[in-house]
Amino acid sequence: MSTVEHPATTAERQTGERSTPERKEPTFVFTEKQVSEKSELARRFIETRASLNANVEKANNFLVKRFYNIDHNAYLEGTLPAKTKELMGLVASVCLRCDECIFYHAIQAYRLGTPRAEQEESLNVALVVGGSIVVPHLRRVYELLEELYA
Amino acid sequence: MSTVEHPATTAERQTGERSTPERKEPTFVFTEKQVSEKSELARRFIETRASLNANVEKANNFLVKRFYNIDHNAYLEGTLPAKTKELMGLVASVCLRCDECIFYHAIQAYRLGTPRAEQEESLNVALVVGGSIVVPHLRRVYELLEELYA
Amino acid sequence: MSTVEHPATTAERQTGERSTPERKEPTFVFTEKQVSEKSELARRFIETRASLNANVEKANNFLVKRFYNIDHNAYLEGTLPAKTKELMGLVASVCLRCDECIFYHAIQAYRLGTPRAEQEESLNVALVVGGSIVVPHLRRVYELLEELYA
Amino acid sequence: MSTVEHPATTAERQTGERSTPERKEPTFVFTEKQVSEKSELARRFIETRASLNANVEKANNFLVKRFYNIDHNAYLEGTLPAKTKELMGLVASVCLRCDECIFYHAIQAYRLGTPRAEQEESLNVALVVGGSIVVPHLRRVYELLEELYA
Amino acid sequence: MSTVEHPATTAERQTGERSTPERKEPTFVFTEKQVSEKSELARRFIETRASLNANVEKANNFLVKRFYNIDHNAYLEGTLPAKTKELMGLVASVCLRCDECIFYHAIQAYRLGTPRAEQEESLNVALVVGGSIVVPHLRRVYELLEELYA
Amino acid sequence: MSTVEHPATTAERQTGERSTPERKEPTFVFTEKQVSEKSELARRFIETRASLNANVEKANNFLVKRFYNIDHNAYLEGTLPAKTKELMGLVASVCLRCDECIFYHAIQAYRLGTPRAEQEESLNVALVVGGSIVVPHLRRVYELLEELYA
Repeated sequence: MSTVEHPATTAERQTGERSTPERKEPTFVFTEKQVSEKSELARRFIETRASLNANVEKANNFLVKRFYNIDHNAYLEGTLPAKTKELMGLVASVCLRCDECIFYHAIQAYRLGTPRAEQEESLNVALVVGGSIVVPHLRRVYELLEELYA
Repeated sequence: MSTVEHPATTAERQTGERSTPERKEPTFVFTEKQVSEKSELARRFIETRASLNANVEKANNFLVKRFYNIDHNAYLEGTLPAKTKELMGLVASVCLRCDECIFYHAIQAYRLGTPRAEQEESLNVALVVGGSIVVPHLRRVYELLEELYA
Repeated sequence: MSTVEHPATTAERQTGERSTPERKEPTFVFTEKQVSEKSELARRFIETRASLNANVEKANNFLVKRFYNIDHNAYLEGTLPAKTKELMGLVASVCLRCDECIFYHAIQAYRLGTPRAEQEESLNVALVVGGSIVVPHLRRVYELLEELYA
Repeated sequence: MSTVEHPATTAERQTGERSTPERKEPTFVFTEKQVSEKSELARRFIETRASLNANVEKANNFLVKRFYNIDHNAYLEGTLPAKTKELMGLVASVCLRCDECIFYHAIQAYRLGTPRAEQEESLNVALVVGGSIVVPHLRRVYELLEELYA
Repeated sequence: MSTVEHPATTAERQTGERSTPERKEPTFVFTEKQVSEKSELARRFIETRASLNANVEKANNFLVKRFYNIDHNAYLEGTLPAKTKELMGLVASVCLRCDECIFYHAIQAYRLGTPRAEQEESLNVALVVGGSIVVPHLRRVYELLEELYA
Repeated sequence: MSTVEHPATTAERQTGERSTPERKEPTFVFTEKQVSEKSELARRFIETRASLNANVEKANNFLVKRFYNIDHNAYLEGTLPAKTKELMGLVASVCLRCDECIFYHAIQAYRLGTPRAEQEESLNVALVVGGSIVVPHLRRVYELLEELYA
């Protein structure tokens, strides 16, 4: 067994931060309101989501609230930038083929200042992994990108 | 309709590179051989994959070769670093629950110098998106990470 | 090898009913008509489904009819109450992310007198198993529950 | 190890064509325009798809274009008739539960002169493989078949 | 709009417990050790899982620990009995086709005193929802049931 | 609305056989025994499957038997040849990523005299629809094909 030392591992050991990366709220370049004013598709998505979420919150279900909290935590600034994690959420959402999830992460990535070319490259990974069955979702998110990056 | 200009869009327009990002082979920190010497799990995966792939290549199927070529292209250095795209492949593979794909991308990310904390944060996104059904795959990739980053 | 006897196994052996539980139609507390009068979302779902099913029936396809028959049998009163099996259908439908299937089973469970808290607990199992990718479906079924249990 | 010779293998060896079947464009019995005139459901699908695809093409993304090209190749006349491969695409689309993909392949199969009975038998395979979770998609494609084969 | 009152809703209002059902640890009829002594398949599953989980715990990842905690909570005694929720977990795991998850929930249900007939009826729901693609998993869990309920 | 008459529809009307295609058992070119003698991979698959199925049959579950019966019916000679439907089963199994199902249908297709080139073209459709996530399954079925068509 060789003993090649992974440089990253060394770095982690020095800072001792492997299991406790600091998490903090990301800084958005655009508000949801600005996005809604720019893209009609985004506006409709954001409004429907807010209205349905209000309904879920009213139910005040213990476990749903805990899950939403974890979900929020997973995309904070950490060892990886929030932007990268939103793009990962985008790739996962395309592969699992959920339009709302796709729109959510594409909009979040946009709000964090992600260039369109990075969104497209992320979508390329998703297309290759997921195959032609994801193409209808690709078509819809390209329509959204067209409005966001107009 | 407001006319907020997305800074990234501006940048893209200036360089005109939106649809033609340069693609080039990434620089690996470790060879497959070094990884195989360090991790027994990685070694078995790499050998089985190579042996089965030899078989596919012998068949010399036109469309399979074209697909493999596109697949290779999707993870090259581009607008996004190769490392980020391997981590995206990792997230997608966990969400779609394919152990070989998970091992492949975790090893590629390691070979590109990704710190373990970044692999774990990527896996966290996948866990939250994919739910407890991905946990058995998470357990197996943590075993691989333990060997790789020992 | 120990010989701990599972009490349930003993019970089954005495009655000999393991492979032949009696199946019978469940007793509904509410008719589809009553549900449609209470919830606009349920009404639209029930009407669309009926109209599309009429079309399938007209085709009179041998195998489709056989499949529908098995499907009907799977949710009858048996060893497990019909209500429990409708909630299982609900959990499976959320995990597999099919809105029509989710609405169908949530409405059937309601019609069998299931309390809202039991629907929510079933949805919690589905959320944890299925992850955040099921959240958009959760939001929509909470909207339905809000109307049904108003 | 016996040495039973597979007759098909023999045939392939004689022609030497295993990995290089000729691919050519299929001959359609109906144009998209004729299909659109016959079925309102088909018309709406074809128009929406064309409009969204125009948008994707405008983006001129290298990898997307390569993927579309492979996708086109997979359904050409080859060793198997184009019609058979469109029906395979239909079965896969039902099992993976993508309405647009289902409509696309059902319409392509129709345009190639496939009898309705063959579409239904293909759907039966998909129903048995995929289970009741595919039923809502089955209902919608039966509605399309009703219009196409009126 | 009629005002049919759902009896369950009335009950919930009286106790006010809709969103705060008490959760408590379930009472197991059998320990993991007893199960391992009875079934070789269960023993191997339980041991592998424990060993891999030890590895995950060592990583001490904040978000993984939070997720495991929610997961544990979802199956506690609540408005629905723990046994019913384990069977729901079983149905979901069969539909999503994860052998480890299937074994885990079938064993948990057994440990809670679930009769074999109830496990089979749950599996029937999963078979009908999930289709023939779940049959290989069904075969494997029937082998486990054969050992558990011997 | 135009009144283009689909030739296939005309044919069906004349024979009146749309919903009642004759179904009959297909004629196999090879027995399971011959396949097992030729391919070690096939032998192990066939033996494991038979042994596990014996176990399921012993349970004598009403609904499982009904489901197996429908499943058998779906692949009989009908309007479409049995061979075509086995290849459809193959495509669906690759897209849904179930190794046992893939092996089952590839072997059935072989036993019905399907040339290797037709198996490969079917796999190409599955690869394009399903994406790189199906590649590990593709590698394994190519290994089987190598043995079967040696």
